[in-house]
Amino acid sequence: MSAERIYLDHAAGGALLPAVQKEMLRYLVGNQASPGGGHREGREAREELEKARQRVATFLGAKDVEGVIFTSGGTEAVQSAIRGWGEAVQKGTIYVSEMEHPAVESAVRTLGKKGFTLVRVSVDVEGRLKWGEVKVEKDKGLVCVHLAHHDLGTVQKIAEARKFADRVGAKLFVDATYSAGWVSFSVEESGADLVALSGHRLGGPKGSGALWIRSGTAWAAWLEGGRQEGDRRAGTENLPAIVGLGVAVEEWGKKGEAFRKEAGGAQKLFWHGVQKKVGIAKLHGAPLGVERNPAHLAVSFAGLEAEALALVLDRVGLAVRGGSGCVTREMRVPPGMKAIGATAEEARALILFTLGWNCGEEWTGEAADRVAQGVKRLTEALSA
Amino acid sequence: MSAERIYLDHAAGGALLPAVQKEMLRYLVGNQASPGGGHREGREAREELEKARQRVATFLGAKDVEGVIFTSGGTEAVQSAIRGWGEAVQKGTIYVSEMEHPAVESAVRTLGKKGFTLVRVSVDVEGRLKWGEVKVEKDKGLVCVHLAHHDLGTVQKIAEARKFADRVGAKLFVDATYSAGWVSFSVEESGADLVALSGHRLGGPKGSGALWIRSGTAWAAWLEGGRQEGDRRAGTENLPAIVGLGVAVEEWGKKGEAFRKEAGGAQKLFWHGVQKKVGIAKLHGAPLGVERNPAHLAVSFAGLEAEALALVLDRVGLAVRGGSGCVTREMRVPPGMKAIGATAEEARALILFTLGWNCGEEWTGEAADRVAQGVKRLTEALSA
Repeated sequence: MSAERIYLDHAAGGALLPAVQKEMLRYLVGNQASPGGGHREGREAREELEKARQRVATFLGAKDVEGVIFTSGGTEAVQSAIRGWGEAVQKGTIYVSEMEHPAVESAVRTLGKKGFTLVRVSVDVEGRLKWGEVKVEKDKGLVCVHLAHHDLGTVQKIAEARKFADRVGAKLFVDATYSAGWVSFSVEESGADLVALSGHRLGGPKGSGALWIRSGTAWAAWLEGGRQEGDRRAGTENLPAIVGLGVAVEEWGKKGEAFRKEAGGAQKLFWHGVQKKVGIAKLHGAPLGVERNPAHLAVSFAGLEAEALALVLDRVGLAVRGGSGCVTREMRVPPGMKAIGATAEEARALILFTLGWNCGEEWTGEAADRVAQGVKRLTEALSA
Repeated sequence: MSAERIYLDHAAGGALLPAVQKEMLRYLVGNQASPGGGHREGREAREELEKARQRVATFLGAKDVEGVIFTSGGTEAVQSAIRGWGEAVQKGTIYVSEMEHPAVESAVRTLGKKGFTLVRVSVDVEGRLKWGEVKVEKDKGLVCVHLAHHDLGTVQKIAEARKFADRVGAKLFVDATYSAGWVSFSVEESGADLVALSGHRLGGPKGSGALWIRSGTAWAAWLEGGRQEGDRRAGTENLPAIVGLGVAVEEWGKKGEAFRKEAGGAQKLFWHGVQKKVGIAKLHGAPLGVERNPAHLAVSFAGLEAEALALVLDRVGLAVRGGSGCVTREMRVPPGMKAIGATAEEARALILFTLGWNCGEEWTGEAADRVAQGVKRLTEALSA
């Protein structure tokens, strides 16, 4: 067995794209002037900022470049989108599943405590949102949908969410933090009103993210203070990260198709290897193909505890995520697994394997062997 | 005249300390794993995170390392401190001046709209807060004070603010985003309950900041979602920035005395030069010395408009800030200038000259010449 480690937790953090790295290294040795200054250094910084804004708008398929607001990451973009809408409308109804990422779930709960009505959208056994069965309220509404699920990998049909939103006269928020780039998306085609983006999931820098808001959408700034970002997001602009995000999304524009194809190929090889070698392995969420994020596998190993298995896999040189990709204190069972009706045993045994832009596929056989070895070791340890 | 530009807008953005730059360049070429993962890469990231936390606690003179929460910058730290306190206590009184930074002012106004009582603290002609004259309310209170003023440069006596807070049974929030490092401060000595810090003002990276909370202080997390930072600040940790902030504050521990001495010397030389060459120049805030941030000069040129003068100075190779360092839409006159009773003419003509760790003093004579030249040019243009 090769001693080289295999890292399959890219959704939590992965290497910067080479072009991003290069640009950030260039930027960090510069003068770090802020775009706000009325001097040459400030004007140059302003140009960098607006160039990045244009790049993000292009990536999102958005005509309105000014709709882009830079944030400190995906969580802030999500919180700012939902709570900013809530602040602006003061009361209304939020249509949302019970398996959203904690950033979404905590924002809608906070609004729920402030008097908003929460209408839950149910899902099928592979995690697809069922818009046909949703109860309709009459007041101002916000439909919250994710582009692909963070724990299940299932891609949602945004067009159906938009159709539902139109039917109830609601705005549409798309949480694209987990799967932008990996899954085809355009704000104009989808008709989204609010979109959240995370930079680091695109091979961009940590601490970068964006919120896109359709002009005319009721929304109030969430992070208040200075006048940066057109009074919509206060605080000195994190220009090195913003510049990095701009380069990252531009890279996806050029190479996204190749990234998706490569990840999808590796995903298939790896899953088939695991499936063949580990009898108890079970894939959750949508099957491989267009309905699944090509960089994501959610596999349960019923009878084993996810955290323990992740630790054993780490020992055999495979870095993975045991349990949900992101949990709150109360979420002992990944909400996605509960929502699709997985058994308690399966839900406790969920391992996420997430790929990045730099995975290739030469590791897939070895990684499947390591999974088999880890499962065997833990099973033996428990039976001893 | 030398063609080389002189940059005196460091408070808005300045070069990284060499050690910070080196560390960030090292970090950005790494695997970018997140501290949350239960694998080797995640544990190594966790170690980096906690090392930085320890460094920030040491810099702040805080015994409780766990009191440190990393944020996306000074504005988020300020907003999170004040609004998090507000969320936890639900009603109460905030004691605050009318010349705070917009991050503070907007947070207290937001709480004011939610039913909190705002009691305004007046200031003397050099910008010192007058705690003896403040009206006292009986409910739960928060005293908001800045370490040194962002537009006036005046250092506040935090001990007096603490004494007042004790008298009224209030918690003490110290906004140290503008002058930490440049002005002596320790959370234990000052008895602060909440402290906000900005990384980029310390030669650290943009997008880095910290909030320190004394254990037992009523406070609720502001940015919700995942469980990062002990459920106190959700979102994937921006580890490159956090690591950079850690190195920055460690550098200040080693070299802070030298930075302060060098900036103070340059401040004196430059101001004396300007004073000598430009008759209309008037220093605002505290006089040079221990009551003034050594990296800050607030000078009015009555009769001229600050923005216009800043543009002319830019043309003669001097990058400065015209008007307040940070304004909101409604603050056409810098609130600090209004609070100290400056004339409208002076308030409209305020130029900020802010120094950084890398200024040296060889530029001071040339910079004073350029100020004189800029003032002359603009005066002539207006009289023509």
